[in-house]
Amino acid sequence: MKKIGVVLAGCGHQDGAEIHEATLTLLFLDQAGVEWTAFAPNQNQHHVLNHGSGKEMAESRNVLVESARIARGKIQDLTEAKAEDLDAVIFPGGFGAAKNLIDWAFKGPESTVHPEVERLITQMHKAGKPQGFICIAPVIAARVMANLGVNAQLTIGTDQGTSEAIESLGHTAKACAVDEIWTDETNKLVSTAAYMLGPGIADIAKGIEKLVRQVVSLA
Amino acid sequence: MKKIGVVLAGCGHQDGAEIHEATLTLLFLDQAGVEWTAFAPNQNQHHVLNHGSGKEMAESRNVLVESARIARGKIQDLTEAKAEDLDAVIFPGGFGAAKNLIDWAFKGPESTVHPEVERLITQMHKAGKPQGFICIAPVIAARVMANLGVNAQLTIGTDQGTSEAIESLGHTAKACAVDEIWTDETNKLVSTAAYMLGPGIADIAKGIEKLVRQVVSLA
Repeated sequence: MKKIGVVLAGCGHQDGAEIHEATLTLLFLDQAGVEWTAFAPNQNQHHVLNHGSGKEMAESRNVLVESARIARGKIQDLTEAKAEDLDAVIFPGGFGAAKNLIDWAFKGPESTVHPEVERLITQMHKAGKPQGFICIAPVIAARVMANLGVNAQLTIGTDQGTSEAIESLGHTAKACAVDEIWTDETNKLVSTAAYMLGPGIADIAKGIEKLVRQVVSLA
Repeated sequence: MKKIGVVLAGCGHQDGAEIHEATLTLLFLDQAGVEWTAFAPNQNQHHVLNHGSGKEMAESRNVLVESARIARGKIQDLTEAKAEDLDAVIFPGGFGAAKNLIDWAFKGPESTVHPEVERLITQMHKAGKPQGFICIAPVIAARVMANLGVNAQLTIGTDQGTSEAIESLGHTAKACAVDEIWTDETNKLVSTAAYMLGPGIADIAKGIEKLVRQVVSLA
C-alpha cells in the first residue's frame, strides 16, 4: 500500500492549516486506498488568531499539538518524515502554511523555509517522488526549488501578486481555476488553488480530489 | 434556497466537534446547493485536551471561538439560531458534543442539555422541521425528546452501552452500519454512526452524505 505524508501547519486557516483543505486531502487519500500519516513541526505557532474576530489572542499553541486535532492523533513530529518511507507528500494550505512552515506571509520571495520542511521537500525531490501543494502552499515549493536552482511550474490560482512573486524566483506561475490542477511533470509537483480562489468547500473539493488522484497516480 | 444550521461544539474530536464530521457536513450541504450557517454556544469548553497525548491542558478555550476555525468565521452565537429562520439543523459529533452541548459524557441518560441547544431542538421539533444527528450527537436528541415525552428512533451505530442508555429514555436504538442512516419519519430525526464506528474518513463520509441528503430532502 502506498504511503503518503500530509504536512500540517496547525488547525485553522488564519494561523494554521486550512481545516477543509486538510480534511478533504485525508478523505480523498482514504478513498484512493492509500495509507496516510500526518506530520507537523513540534514548535509554537507564529501566533494564535481568534477565527471569529481575526484578532490576535494572548496565547501560544504548538503546531504539532494543534495539527493532531485534524489528524485525530495520527500524527508524528516532522523530523520523523523520511523520503525513503514515503511515496509522496501533500501540503494543504491555510495562512499557517505561510507562517509556520515558511515565513512567506511576512517576507514573500525572500522568505526562509522551516529547516525540516526544506529537508523533506528536497529529499523527496531528489528521490524523484511526487509532491502536492494546495492553496498558498505552492510558495513553499517555489522557495525550496529556487534554493535548489530548479525552475518549476506551479499554480496559485489567479492571484497576480503571488504569481509575480513566484515568477520572481525563476518559476512559471500557471493560472488555473479552482477545479483545476497543474502538474509539473519534470519535478513531479502538483498544485491547486483551493481557497486562494474558493469560494465554497464544494468548489475546492474538485481541485483537491484531482490533486490527490494525480499525486497518488504518480507515486 | 434552503437554510441549514450546523451546530458545532468546538474544534477537535476529544474536546470539541469532530473536525472530519463537521467538515464533511459542510461539504455535502454545499454540494446540495443549500446555504449553511454554523452556530455554537458562546461559553468555555468543558476542558481542553492535547489531541496527541490525550492529556488535559491548563488552558480554557471558548466553544464559539474554536468552532469558528471549522466554519472559517461563518458562525453565530447559538442564541441567534431560530427555528423560523432555518429549514433544518445538523449536529456533528465528537466528544465535545457530549461535553459542551450536553453533559452526557459525565452523566449519561441523567444528563442536562445546554439550554440553547434544548431550546433550538425543541423549536425545530415543534415546527416539524428535520434535524440530523451524527456520531454521539443522537444522545442529545434522545435527552431532549425524552424531556418532551416523545419516543424516538435513533442510531448510534452498534455500541451496546450507548444504545441501552438511549433505550432507557423510552426510545428505540436502531443498529446501523457506518454507511447507513436511520430516519425517524414521525419526528424527522435522521442519525448516522460516523466515528462511533469508523474506522476511516472514507467510511464515515458515506453515512454523512446520506444523512445530509436526507435532511435536505425532508427540509
